[in-house]
Amino acid sequence: MTTAYDIPETMTASVLQKVGEITLEERPVPRCAPDEVLIQVASVGVCGSDTHYYTHGAIGPYVVEQPLILGHEAGGRIVAVGADVDPARIGQRVSIEPQRPCRVCDFCRSGAYNLCPKMAFYATPPIDGAFCEYVLIQDDFAYEVPDAVSDDAAALMEPLSVGIAAAQKGGIKIGDTVLIAGGGPIGVIAAQVARAFGAADVVVADISAERRELAAKFGARVVDPAAESTEDLGAHVFIDASGATPAILNGVRSLRSGGTVVLVGSADVVPFEVPEIAMRELNVTGIFRYTNTWPIARELVASGQVDLDSLVTHVYGIEQVVDALDASSGGLKRVVRPGVRRVENPQARQ
Amino acid sequence: MTTAYDIPETMTASVLQKVGEITLEERPVPRCAPDEVLIQVASVGVCGSDTHYYTHGAIGPYVVEQPLILGHEAGGRIVAVGADVDPARIGQRVSIEPQRPCRVCDFCRSGAYNLCPKMAFYATPPIDGAFCEYVLIQDDFAYEVPDAVSDDAAALMEPLSVGIAAAQKGGIKIGDTVLIAGGGPIGVIAAQVARAFGAADVVVADISAERRELAAKFGARVVDPAAESTEDLGAHVFIDASGATPAILNGVRSLRSGGTVVLVGSADVVPFEVPEIAMRELNVTGIFRYTNTWPIARELVASGQVDLDSLVTHVYGIEQVVDALDASSGGLKRVVRPGVRRVENPQARQ
Amino acid sequence: MTTAYDIPETMTASVLQKVGEITLEERPVPRCAPDEVLIQVASVGVCGSDTHYYTHGAIGPYVVEQPLILGHEAGGRIVAVGADVDPARIGQRVSIEPQRPCRVCDFCRSGAYNLCPKMAFYATPPIDGAFCEYVLIQDDFAYEVPDAVSDDAAALMEPLSVGIAAAQKGGIKIGDTVLIAGGGPIGVIAAQVARAFGAADVVVADISAERRELAAKFGARVVDPAAESTEDLGAHVFIDASGATPAILNGVRSLRSGGTVVLVGSADVVPFEVPEIAMRELNVTGIFRYTNTWPIARELVASGQVDLDSLVTHVYGIEQVVDALDASSGGLKRVVRPGVRRVENPQARQ
Amino acid sequence: MTTAYDIPETMTASVLQKVGEITLEERPVPRCAPDEVLIQVASVGVCGSDTHYYTHGAIGPYVVEQPLILGHEAGGRIVAVGADVDPARIGQRVSIEPQRPCRVCDFCRSGAYNLCPKMAFYATPPIDGAFCEYVLIQDDFAYEVPDAVSDDAAALMEPLSVGIAAAQKGGIKIGDTVLIAGGGPIGVIAAQVARAFGAADVVVADISAERRELAAKFGARVVDPAAESTEDLGAHVFIDASGATPAILNGVRSLRSGGTVVLVGSADVVPFEVPEIAMRELNVTGIFRYTNTWPIARELVASGQVDLDSLVTHVYGIEQVVDALDASSGGLKRVVRPGVRRVENPQARQ
Repeated sequence: MTTAYDIPETMTASVLQKVGEITLEERPVPRCAPDEVLIQVASVGVCGSDTHYYTHGAIGPYVVEQPLILGHEAGGRIVAVGADVDPARIGQRVSIEPQRPCRVCDFCRSGAYNLCPKMAFYATPPIDGAFCEYVLIQDDFAYEVPDAVSDDAAALMEPLSVGIAAAQKGGIKIGDTVLIAGGGPIGVIAAQVARAFGAADVVVADISAERRELAAKFGARVVDPAAESTEDLGAHVFIDASGATPAILNGVRSLRSGGTVVLVGSADVVPFEVPEIAMRELNVTGIFRYTNTWPIARELVASGQVDLDSLVTHVYGIEQVVDALDASSGGLKRVVRPGVRRVENPQARQ
Repeated sequence: MTTAYDIPETMTASVLQKVGEITLEERPVPRCAPDEVLIQVASVGVCGSDTHYYTHGAIGPYVVEQPLILGHEAGGRIVAVGADVDPARIGQRVSIEPQRPCRVCDFCRSGAYNLCPKMAFYATPPIDGAFCEYVLIQDDFAYEVPDAVSDDAAALMEPLSVGIAAAQKGGIKIGDTVLIAGGGPIGVIAAQVARAFGAADVVVADISAERRELAAKFGARVVDPAAESTEDLGAHVFIDASGATPAILNGVRSLRSGGTVVLVGSADVVPFEVPEIAMRELNVTGIFRYTNTWPIARELVASGQVDLDSLVTHVYGIEQVVDALDASSGGLKRVVRPGVRRVENPQARQ
Repeated sequence: MTTAYDIPETMTASVLQKVGEITLEERPVPRCAPDEVLIQVASVGVCGSDTHYYTHGAIGPYVVEQPLILGHEAGGRIVAVGADVDPARIGQRVSIEPQRPCRVCDFCRSGAYNLCPKMAFYATPPIDGAFCEYVLIQDDFAYEVPDAVSDDAAALMEPLSVGIAAAQKGGIKIGDTVLIAGGGPIGVIAAQVARAFGAADVVVADISAERRELAAKFGARVVDPAAESTEDLGAHVFIDASGATPAILNGVRSLRSGGTVVLVGSADVVPFEVPEIAMRELNVTGIFRYTNTWPIARELVASGQVDLDSLVTHVYGIEQVVDALDASSGGLKRVVRPGVRRVENPQARQ
Repeated sequence: MTTAYDIPETMTASVLQKVGEITLEERPVPRCAPDEVLIQVASVGVCGSDTHYYTHGAIGPYVVEQPLILGHEAGGRIVAVGADVDPARIGQRVSIEPQRPCRVCDFCRSGAYNLCPKMAFYATPPIDGAFCEYVLIQDDFAYEVPDAVSDDAAALMEPLSVGIAAAQKGGIKIGDTVLIAGGGPIGVIAAQVARAFGAADVVVADISAERRELAAKFGARVVDPAAESTEDLGAHVFIDASGATPAILNGVRSLRSGGTVVLVGSADVVPFEVPEIAMRELNVTGIFRYTNTWPIARELVASGQVDLDSLVTHVYGIEQVVDALDASSGGLKRVVRPGVRRVENPQARQ
C-alpha cells in the first residue's frame, strides 16, 4: 500500500448494531489489496435504504445479522493505493461506485455486472458501507471528479447513477414525454436526467405540495395526481420513484402504446392489468443499481446539466447519523460528513 | 375489379346476431376497392376470441353491438383484384393477414402498425371476419403460399404469427432457455417457433396431462407445474399462453435475472411483485397481434420447421360454426371450411 | 379541395430546363388529392443537391431528363386541403417533409420508408420540388410549426432532419464524443443536434478557417485537420459531412473501437482499410434522408436547442434562383422566397 | 495448484523461432495461478493466422519479436486447477476460449472484452499458444464439453465462435437471406451458423469448384461468382470470409437496402462506394474474435446443428507442425495433436 498521507491506525465508524441501535466504534483503518484504493470519506448521502435497515433490519433477502456500517453514496479523496494501482492517483478527489462484482460470471462478462450474484455492495449485509472515515474500493470504481464538483455532489453521483440507469432502461430519447411519480431525491434527479437525455416534456407527479414545489425548482413540470389526471399524457416512459401502487397504476395508464415503465421505487405487490400490458404492448421493467454510469454522471454534473448540490437540505456529522436517518426531518437530501463530529445547524443549508 | 372466376352475387355467411345466437345469412359478395383482393375462403381457424365473442359479446373495449361475422384466421384463393393490383395474382392461394391499418399515423409510419388506433381487424367489432365464402383484404396483406402448404396451414399462419410476434418480443435468441405456460394451440405453436429461433431448451408447462402429451408430440420438453417446479430453470424468456395468474407468477420466478415475460394469454389483473421485477431487472411485456410476420410464418411452414397441419383436430362446415366455437369439444385446433356445408365426422382427423 | 383562400389558377415556378438553364414558367396551381394539402411556399433552402442538378444534371441514378422544379427544403402555409383532410388545417404554418413513400412495401411497413423503392421525393427527377409558389404534400407530411418558428426555420427543418437522422444512425448517446467532418450547413446542424442528443464533446473539423469560425459560433469545438490530429480523440461517433476522402479516413482513425461512421456527405469511392474496420469492430454506415424526424426537429427548434435562423446568410427571390444556386457566394445557407420576385441585397443578413 | 494427474516437469512445445523456422523445445510445464486451470492439450486447429505468422512474422501491429508458440484453437482436459478453482473440474474435457482480457477497462466492463486493449491472446505475440502439451487459461474460459463432442470439435469451437460472432454482428434473424463469400473453414462454419440462426437462404460464393463442392456438403446453396451474379439476391447479411476485394464489392451489391456487411476475412484496403453505403443505408462492420460465444458453440455442436468433425481433413503430430501450417496441402481444416509425435497419413481422414 502506497501513500503520501498520514493515515491513522484506527478510524471512527458509525455502526448499526441491530435494529434501532447505532453507535460509534473505533475500527482499524482498512488496508488496500493490490487492486484497491483507500479513500478518506468526505461526504455520504443518506438513502431510504439506510433508514430502512435502521428501522427494519432487512430489505427483501438482505438481513442485518451482524453489526453493519451503513451509507453507500460516498465521495472523498484517495489517500493510499494498492500495489497494482498508479500511485499518481493518491490525492485525487473521487466519487465511489460502491459495488464489487465478481467480474467472471455470465452477467459480469456480458456487461450486466449489477446482476452479478456474487456482488458485494456497500451497506448491504454483510458488506460495510461509508458512514466512517476511510473506505476501500477497487481502483476502477473510484472516479476522479473535477475541482468544481463538491464533495456532496461527488457523493450524490450514486443516486444520480440510479437516475441515469432508469433513463437508460426506459430508453428515453430525444423528444420524449416522460412521467415521473414521486418528487423525492430520486424523482427530482430522474427529472433532470430525463431532460438531459433529450426529453421534451418531463412531468413529476407528487401528492405533496412541498415536493411539487421542490421539483418545480429543478425545472420539471409538476402535477398533483389527486387533482389532475395524466391519462392523456401519452408518455413514452414512466419512471416510478414513489413506490406507491396508485401512482404506478396511474403511470401505466399515462403511457402511450409501446411505452415503458421503469420501477425504481420500493413498491411491493402491484396488481397490473395484463390486457393493458398486452394490448398496448407496454414494457414493465425496473432497475437494480447501475452499470458504467459514473462517466455520464460526472459529465452531467460537470456540465451543469444536473444540479446535485441544491438537493442537499441537511448536513450532519458522524455523531449525528441517527438524526440523519430520520426521514421525518423533511427536506430533500441529507448528507453525513464522516470527518466532522457534529454540525450545529444541520438544516441551515435548506 | 378484375377476375377470371365466376363470382356469385351473394354468399353464405355465418353471422353472430347477438350473444349466443349465430345464424346463416345470404350476403352480397363484396367488391374490391382499387388496392384490394377478393379471396374465396378455404379454411378458417377458430380462436378463443371467436368463442368469447359468441359467449360474452365483448372482449375488453370491443363490444358486439351489431351483427358480426367471426373468424380471423383465414386462407383461401384470390378470385378477383382491384384496379391497382396485379391481375396475375388472380388464382393465387394465399394466407390472410387480417388487419387494415391506417398507414399514416405515428405507429404505422414507424413500423408498429399493430398499435394503429384506427386499425380495422377481422372479427373485431364492428369489422366482419371470415366465417363466410368471400372476404376482402388489401393486396399486400394477402400472402401467396406454396402448393405444399395446405389450406388449413395457410389459415393457421395467423396464430403462427402470434407465436412469432411473441418470440420476437421476447428476443429469443440462439441458445436460450424458453418456458411456455399453456399447452394449447398458441403454446404449442410458440414452442415450435422458439425452437426455430434457436432456443436450446424449450419447456411447456401445463396442468393438463392431455395437453402435455400433445405438446410433447411437437418436440417440447413438458412439465406438470403441479408436480415439478421450474424455479431453477433460469429461463431467458417466459411466454404466457395460459392466461392463468399462478402460471404467470410461476413463470416470473422461473426467469433468470434480466429475463423477459411475454404475455399472450388473456389474463386479467395479476399481482406482480415489484421487487422481483426491479431487483432482477425483468422485463414484463406482451403482444397485440403482430407486424410483418407472414414472410417468416411462410418460411417456417414451408421449410417444415413448424407443423401446423397436425394441430388440426376438428374440421367443420359453415353450418356448424356453433359446434366449432364449442371449446368443450377438446382437441387442439378446430377449423371451419366455409365452402362446405357440413362435415359429418368433425373430429375424424383427431 | 377545400379552401378559405383566394387561390389563383396559375403560379410562377423556377424550372430547370436542362443543365445550366433555369427559367421562370407559369404553371397551373396543383389541386389536392383527397389525402393532400396545398401549401403556399414561404421559404425554400438551397441544398448542394439542387446546385448539383443545375450544374451536372444528375446525381447517381437520378437524371434530369425533363424540366424539373428544384428545391426540397420548404416551409409555408396550408391554403387548401383534400377531401379527407381536416379543414381546420387550412391556415396552418407548416414545415414540409418532402417525401411520398408507397406505404405498402416491406420498407414502408417496417418503418424504413426512406428506403421505399417507389419513393417520390421533391426535386428528385422526375418529381418537382418547391422553387414555386404552391406545392402539394400528403397531410401527414405537413407539420404545423409554432408562431415562434420562422418561415426559414420551417424550411430548414429538412436539413435539420438530416442531422437528426445522422445522430440517430450513429447512436449518439449521452456523454459521447462526436467528431464531425465539414463545417458547412449540415456539419453545423449535426453539431447542434449531437449536443442535443447529449454528446459531451462535439468537435467539428474543417480545413477552412471561415467555416471553423462559423461552426464555433454554434458552440462546437473546432479543429483544423491540417494542423491538429484527432486520432487520439477516441470518438464514439464520426459524422462525415464533408464528402472528402482524407476527412473520412481521418475520421475513421479518430474513432474508439466499436465506434460508428455515419456517411452523410457525397463522397465517391473511399479506400477503407478492412483490418481497421474488422479488428476495431467499427461500424461504417450512412443515411439516406430520414424517417419520422420532424416532431424531433420541431421540438429542437421550438426549445431553442437548435438555431436554424442564424444559418441563413443569403435570401433570394424566385427570379434569383440561379444566384441562389451559386455556391461560390460563400456564407452558410441560402434560401429562396418564392413569393418574392427579387431581394435587393441577398447577403444583407450575413 | 491441485491435481490428480501425474504432471511432468517439462513438455514438448513447437516453437516459431523466427519467420520460417519452427523447432521443438522442451519447456517447463506452466503452473496455475489461483484463478487458472492447467489443460493437457488434445487437439489444436490450424488457422490462417498461424500460417501467416510462420511465413510473414507479423499480422498488422502484431510482430513476432521473440520465440512464439503458435496455435489458438484448442481443446483438451483439465489436469490441475489453481487455488481458487473448484477441484471438481480436474478431469473435465474442455474447449478453450484463448483470451485473457483485463476485466476492468471500459470495454471489459461493458461486455466487449474482445476489444480490451490489454488483451493477452494465445499465439498473438508475445503470448504463447497451444502447439504444446500443456496450456493455462483462466477458469471461466475453459468450457466443459459433453463426451459426445470430440477433441477436434472441442478445438474447433474457436473458429465456430468466429462464425457465431459474425452471425451476431450481422444480426442474422429468422427468415433472412445470407450471402457468404469464401468456402473455406470459416465460410463453411458461418454457413452452418447462419442456418442455425434461422436464415432461410444461405448462399456460399467461391470461385473454387472444390470449395463449392465442400460447402454444398454442409448444406449451403453454392454459387460460382465468376459464372453467376448474386446482385439480385437481396441479402440481409453478407459475411466476407474470403478477404478478396472483388468478393467484398460483389457482396455489397448483393445486399438489400439496410443490409449488413460483416468483414471476417483478412482483406487489406477495399475501395467502397460511399453513395452505395449512404443511399442504401448499408452497414459495413467486422468482427475481432468474439465474446461469450462458447455456450452457444457448445449447444450448436452438441445438438448437431453444426458439424465440426467433418471439417477436419488432415491430422498431424507435434513434430509435423510445419506440414500442418502448409496451406498448399488442400482440404478444409488441419489439426495438430500435441500429444502425438507423428501421424503417418495426415490426410487419411479426408
